[in-house]
Amino acid sequence: MLKVNENFSNLTKSYLFSNISQKVNEFKANNPDKKVISLGIGDVVLPLCAPVIKGLEEGVKDMSAIETFKGYGPEQGYAFLRDVLQGYYKEFSVELNTNEIFVSDGAKSDLGNILDIFSKDNVVLIPDPVYPAYVDTNVMDGRKIVFMDSNISNNFLALPDYSVKADIIYLCSPNNPTGAVYNREQLTKWVEYAKEMGAVILFDAAYEAFISDESIPHSIYEIPGAKDCAIEVCSLSKTAGFTGLRCGYTVIPMELKCGETSLNELWLRRQSTKFNGVPYIVQKAATGVFSKEGRAKTKEVIDSYKENAKVLGAVLKEMSIDYIGGENSPYIWLKCPNEMSSWDLFDMLLEKANIVGTPGVGFGKNGEGYFRLSCFALKENVIEAAERLKKLQF
Amino acid sequence: MLKVNENFSNLTKSYLFSNISQKVNEFKANNPDKKVISLGIGDVVLPLCAPVIKGLEEGVKDMSAIETFKGYGPEQGYAFLRDVLQGYYKEFSVELNTNEIFVSDGAKSDLGNILDIFSKDNVVLIPDPVYPAYVDTNVMDGRKIVFMDSNISNNFLALPDYSVKADIIYLCSPNNPTGAVYNREQLTKWVEYAKEMGAVILFDAAYEAFISDESIPHSIYEIPGAKDCAIEVCSLSKTAGFTGLRCGYTVIPMELKCGETSLNELWLRRQSTKFNGVPYIVQKAATGVFSKEGRAKTKEVIDSYKENAKVLGAVLKEMSIDYIGGENSPYIWLKCPNEMSSWDLFDMLLEKANIVGTPGVGFGKNGEGYFRLSCFALKENVIEAAERLKKLQF
Repeated sequence: MLKVNENFSNLTKSYLFSNISQKVNEFKANNPDKKVISLGIGDVVLPLCAPVIKGLEEGVKDMSAIETFKGYGPEQGYAFLRDVLQGYYKEFSVELNTNEIFVSDGAKSDLGNILDIFSKDNVVLIPDPVYPAYVDTNVMDGRKIVFMDSNISNNFLALPDYSVKADIIYLCSPNNPTGAVYNREQLTKWVEYAKEMGAVILFDAAYEAFISDESIPHSIYEIPGAKDCAIEVCSLSKTAGFTGLRCGYTVIPMELKCGETSLNELWLRRQSTKFNGVPYIVQKAATGVFSKEGRAKTKEVIDSYKENAKVLGAVLKEMSIDYIGGENSPYIWLKCPNEMSSWDLFDMLLEKANIVGTPGVGFGKNGEGYFRLSCFALKENVIEAAERLKKLQF
Repeated sequence: MLKVNENFSNLTKSYLFSNISQKVNEFKANNPDKKVISLGIGDVVLPLCAPVIKGLEEGVKDMSAIETFKGYGPEQGYAFLRDVLQGYYKEFSVELNTNEIFVSDGAKSDLGNILDIFSKDNVVLIPDPVYPAYVDTNVMDGRKIVFMDSNISNNFLALPDYSVKADIIYLCSPNNPTGAVYNREQLTKWVEYAKEMGAVILFDAAYEAFISDESIPHSIYEIPGAKDCAIEVCSLSKTAGFTGLRCGYTVIPMELKCGETSLNELWLRRQSTKFNGVPYIVQKAATGVFSKEGRAKTKEVIDSYKENAKVLGAVLKEMSIDYIGGENSPYIWLKCPNEMSSWDLFDMLLEKANIVGTPGVGFGKNGEGYFRLSCFALKENVIEAAERLKKLQF
C-alpha cells in the first residue's frame, strides 16, 4: 500500500500571498476606478536588456539549423557560461575552478534540491524573518529546525550563538525580506561558527548585484576559510531580470567535504540523475549578462530599482517611519508606525493609498510589526506611491 | 556535525556512457581517418521545426519590451500551454482538467523529483532492463527496489506477478531501451495489479509520439480506472526535439489519492516550494508543437527517425539477427549474434564497422547479450551504417 511522505502534513499552509491577492482583488472589484500600485511581490518589471536578448536570438538561430542545433547539454552547464561565471568571481578576488560551478534554473530549485545530498538527521539553523522556502523544504524532509532571531536589537542581522548547535545554516545577504546586509566581520563570525560546528552554510546571494557599498562582500568566498564550509547559491533573476527566463548558479568548492565525502561530487551525481541542464538558449542569454555591454545595461536597471528605494526611503524619513534596507537591496523593511500590526498596515495602505506591500509577519514571528516594500516597480509608479504615502495620517 | 545522505554511497558508479565515450575517443585517436557513426545515445539530431522556432521568437520579443515582459510565471505552467495539452489528451479520449497537468523542464526532473512526495518506506517495482535513473533516484532515497524481469520469454514486456508486493511501479512504454510497447490488454493488467496492491504506477510516456500502431495506448489514462492509480510523465524531448530546450509535463489526476491525501495537492506544494516554472519562451515554443503546422512538422521528423529504424531493421533481418522495437519506438533492441556479450558486440561494431551503439547490459542484467541501436541520426549516416553492417561476418 502506497505511503506518502508524511512530513508534508507538517507544512503550514502558506496563506501569505494568497491572502494578499484575495484582499487586493476584493479591493479592486469594489473600487474599479482606483489605480492600485504594487510594491508587494519581489518580481522584476523591466524587460531583458539588449545583450541578453541578443544571446537568446543567437541561441534560437542555432536551434533552428541542423549544423548548429544543440541537444542534451552538460547537466552542470555549458563551459562557455561557466567560464564567464568563473571570470565574474575573479572580480571579487574569488578563484574558482569551473567544475565548482553548477548552472541551474534558479536559486529556488537549487536551495530546495541541495537538501537531497544531506541526511534528514541534520539540525537546521534558519533566521526569522526568512524566505519561507528555507523552512518548507526542510519540513518536507522532516529535519529539526532551530530559528535564530533577526530583530531590531541586531539590526536584523543575527549572529552566531555558540550555545545553539546546528549542522546546516541558512544565510541570505543582502537579505530577503529585510534588505539587511552582512559585512565582512559578521560573515567571518559565521564562517568561524560553521567550522566550530562542522556545519555547512547555505549562502543565498541572490541579491548580491544590489550591493553598492564596496566594503560589503558579494560572495561568502571572500571570507577566508569559507570554501571548506559554504555552498553559495546565486541567481540571475534579480541581477538581470531572469525571473521568467530561469537561470542561476550554485558553487560547491572542491575543498568542501563531509568527512571524506566531497559535496561537489554528491551534487554532481544528484544533478546528473535528476536534472538535464538549463536550456541552451537561456545559457546563451546568461552569457550576455556578463558581456561588457550586459554588465553596463544590467547595472542601469539595478540602479533604477535602487533609485526607487531612494524615493521611498526619503518619504519614509520625512514621515519619521523607521526602516532598514534599500541601500544594498531592492527591499525596504519598515517599522509599522504606532505599533500597528503588519496586517493592519497592509489594510490601511491598500485602502487609503491603494498601495500593496507585504506584511512582515508573513516571513516569521519577528516580522510582526514590520512591512516590506519592494522596489521592483516602474519609476513613475513609485513616485506616485511616495506622493500618496506622504498624505497619510498615522 | 554535518551528515550527508548516506544512501548516495549505495549508488553504483555508472560507467556505461563514460566507458563508451572513452572507448570511442580512443578509437578515434588511433583511427583519425575513420568516420564513426553514432547510434548510441538517445539524443535527437534534427533541429527545432518552424512553429517551435516561431514560438521562441515571439516569446523573445515579448521579453524584450516592457509592455509584454513576463516575470515569474505560474509554477505549474502557463494556462495557454496547459489548455493545449488538455486538448492533446482529448485526441486519446482522455479528459483532463488543466489543474491536473503540470508543465516541467523534462521527464528526468519530474521522475526524480516526484519521489519527494512518497515515503521512503515504499517498495518500488522496476523492470530490468531499464532507464538507470529510475533505480538511482530510489537508491538515493533508500527505498527497497524489487526488479521484474523483462526478457525474451515475455517479449521484454514484464507483466504483473501477484506474489510480488509493490507500492510504486515504473512502467515505460514505448520502452527505453527495448523499444517494446504494451498493448491495451497488458496495461489493463498493470492497472488491475496496482489497484490490488494500493500502489501507484509512474508511467513514463516520453516516447508516446513514436507509436504508429493505432491499437496501442499513448496514455495510461486510456485504460479505465487508471486515473486513480497512475501518474503520467511525458516530455517533448523526443516528440519535438526538445532535449536542449527542456519541456515536459506530468499528469496527476484529482482522483489519485493515498487515503485522504491528494497526490496532486502534494505535487503542487512540492513544485511551488522547489520550482519556479519553465521559461515563458520555452512554453511558447511548446505551444508551437501542438499547432496544426507543429503537429505536421513534428510528425515528419518522427517519421524520418522511424524511417531510419526501418533501414536498420531491414538489414538486421537480412543478416538473420533477431530484434524487437523500431516500429513504435526510436530504439532497436537486438540479440547479439553468436551468443556474444553486449560489450564484445560493442567492440566489434566500433572496430569493424565504426558504429557506436549501447551495450544492453548497461541497462541491467537482462540486457546482457542485447544491444541498443538508436535511430536518432541523420538518414545518410543510417544508410551508411546499414551498408557497413551488411558486410560484417559473424
